[in-house]
Amino acid sequence: MPDALSLSPHLPLNRPRLIAPGPVEVEPRVLLELARPQPHHRSPEGIAALMDARAKLSALLGDPYDAVITTSSGTGAFEGALVSLTPEGARVVSAQAGKFSERWGEMSRQLGYDTTLVSKPWGSLLDPEEVAGACVGAHTLLVTHSETSTGALHDLAAITRAAKAQNPDLIVIADCITSYGVAELRPAGWGVDAVVSGSQKGTATPPGLGFVLLSPEVQQRMIPATGRGFYLDLTRELRGQKEGNTPQTPAINLISALALALDRLLAVPREVLWAEKRRQADALIAAGEALGALAWAPRTSPAVAVLRPPSSLTGRQVAARLAEMGQRALPGQAPHEDTVFRVSTLGYADRYDALGIAGILEDCFASLGVAFERGSAVSAAWRALAER
Amino acid sequence: MPDALSLSPHLPLNRPRLIAPGPVEVEPRVLLELARPQPHHRSPEGIAALMDARAKLSALLGDPYDAVITTSSGTGAFEGALVSLTPEGARVVSAQAGKFSERWGEMSRQLGYDTTLVSKPWGSLLDPEEVAGACVGAHTLLVTHSETSTGALHDLAAITRAAKAQNPDLIVIADCITSYGVAELRPAGWGVDAVVSGSQKGTATPPGLGFVLLSPEVQQRMIPATGRGFYLDLTRELRGQKEGNTPQTPAINLISALALALDRLLAVPREVLWAEKRRQADALIAAGEALGALAWAPRTSPAVAVLRPPSSLTGRQVAARLAEMGQRALPGQAPHEDTVFRVSTLGYADRYDALGIAGILEDCFASLGVAFERGSAVSAAWRALAER
Repeated sequence: MPDALSLSPHLPLNRPRLIAPGPVEVEPRVLLELARPQPHHRSPEGIAALMDARAKLSALLGDPYDAVITTSSGTGAFEGALVSLTPEGARVVSAQAGKFSERWGEMSRQLGYDTTLVSKPWGSLLDPEEVAGACVGAHTLLVTHSETSTGALHDLAAITRAAKAQNPDLIVIADCITSYGVAELRPAGWGVDAVVSGSQKGTATPPGLGFVLLSPEVQQRMIPATGRGFYLDLTRELRGQKEGNTPQTPAINLISALALALDRLLAVPREVLWAEKRRQADALIAAGEALGALAWAPRTSPAVAVLRPPSSLTGRQVAARLAEMGQRALPGQAPHEDTVFRVSTLGYADRYDALGIAGILEDCFASLGVAFERGSAVSAAWRALAER
Repeated sequence: MPDALSLSPHLPLNRPRLIAPGPVEVEPRVLLELARPQPHHRSPEGIAALMDARAKLSALLGDPYDAVITTSSGTGAFEGALVSLTPEGARVVSAQAGKFSERWGEMSRQLGYDTTLVSKPWGSLLDPEEVAGACVGAHTLLVTHSETSTGALHDLAAITRAAKAQNPDLIVIADCITSYGVAELRPAGWGVDAVVSGSQKGTATPPGLGFVLLSPEVQQRMIPATGRGFYLDLTRELRGQKEGNTPQTPAINLISALALALDRLLAVPREVLWAEKRRQADALIAAGEALGALAWAPRTSPAVAVLRPPSSLTGRQVAARLAEMGQRALPGQAPHEDTVFRVSTLGYADRYDALGIAGILEDCFASLGVAFERGSAVSAAWRALAER
């Protein structure tokens, strides 16, 4: 295999970038906020920071859902939602077609729920009717909106509507970890009861916080003092957080930083934000197509471009070469490390950064010996991005 | 005039960039270095920081010149070089063809030197023979390498050689404020005695430091206790700094940050750095040409693209629109604010950032109603940049 680029003497002059689907690039003023002496979380300033972040999380969602912030990854927040909304032994349906949705099924089983898996192969889409059929008599549906391992954007609206048509009492917990603040998401209209995400994705904050946004209706069905969790008991958390108090010690610096990061996203209507992120992902996918790397999923997420490299290459080779260039993307997730590579402008990155990533992909593929017309990926990306 | 872009609702999502020819983007770890508790400048750590920065400044130059760091802008450093190398009343030649080179002539006159101006119109190149002719009998030549106001890269090698052929005792002080660490610069081979620059340019550090690099030979001709300056007495400074001491209190945090910023530039051979910056500037110029904005100078600096907008636009309009897009470029300098606009990747920016700027220029010009084929500027820039 040619190895031109690994010999390129200019590589130390590249600006390193996080172009993975999380953790992501963070706005400098958000990073600086982490370095400020934190208020005590029981002080008026600490309480105000929590209330501020919670209100902005709801504003970004656009529906009057209440936010619970967990000091955990998104997985911790998801577990909190599951155990706080689902009684012990209840039937849970996990609709899955990739690494992250499979995790929710595994979590449900480990926690002792009567778990039904509705599984599709990685890279394919969930079938709303199939999911709905499995939800008859179930208590909770676990479903992933943007599947970060495959790049699929599942049709959360159609799935939720179909499932609730079969079972109006169903509680729908949606993994919106990489779709919240990125993809069109209208939980009240769609019937999604709980929206789960984390700080290091669309909200472009360092990792350490998860959050669950809960509909007013589902709050009436929360379980007090669940036997399946103490730290992740969101019923108690929500009660406290509505007053500005967390029962446990929160990562207060991250909470202040999150509130600051949300300001940028709230500066435009949600539809503008969604369209901009859609355009950026379309640009990365168009660049990939020009290089012979096609999107894995038929309905693509705006959060991440998950691309199958040409048959001469593996996902790990592409990700490794990008890393040599100082650009931190990701291969696929086990067992699909070699099937795909994953690039993203999920965080603090704009359309011109997306254009730059198209150039990065061209240099990467050229150095790996892929034949393509120089400039074609950059041009294709720019056609998706240019001001119209 | 159309005003599409100022109405573009996505503008708050743009990542603001410094794309002016200084101050420039700074590497985050360099900024963080500023926030570290500083050592006292008389402590071993403070002395080590100064010695480290001085050694790296010499290493980036590539010739065994000694560095004097001033806590001042580049103008202060230039004044220090002038008064410390030129006796009172001596004859000084100022070769000038733009804002900055004119400043050195003005400085020389104000300081009472017998000043001869060799002036060319802004945007044109200095004529080595004409400059050399004026240097007969002169003590010091002031000459600018990269003229940041016009984008001209004067032929410093030819000018210096021609002038020294006429006058072997001439001292040549070169304004390399935007060429040091950016353009090919070989002062020992060319006969340049003093090289002047500042922290906020190619070394990609915040403003506040100037530096002068002095040849071993010219150090023998430095003036003790010049009557034209106390703070900027570089004879005393150099004597102190060789031992790690500054006679005055230095901006020690900036000095530590500068040392760190220099590491990135020293990670590659100088020729690689120069070629990379040349390529980036060529990309910006190619993008401008595709938009009908031609370089002002016939021999262009790698530090900055100084472009004449199409006749329907002024430099101020372009710079103002870029600012509305969150992109801080510059118009021309008085009285040429409207003649040109200036964009640059002088600081912490790589080839993919240069590609992004081509996209920024396309969106800017489209929003200002300029007719061009969409994608042409991006494609032209990428042809200059793509890995070969």
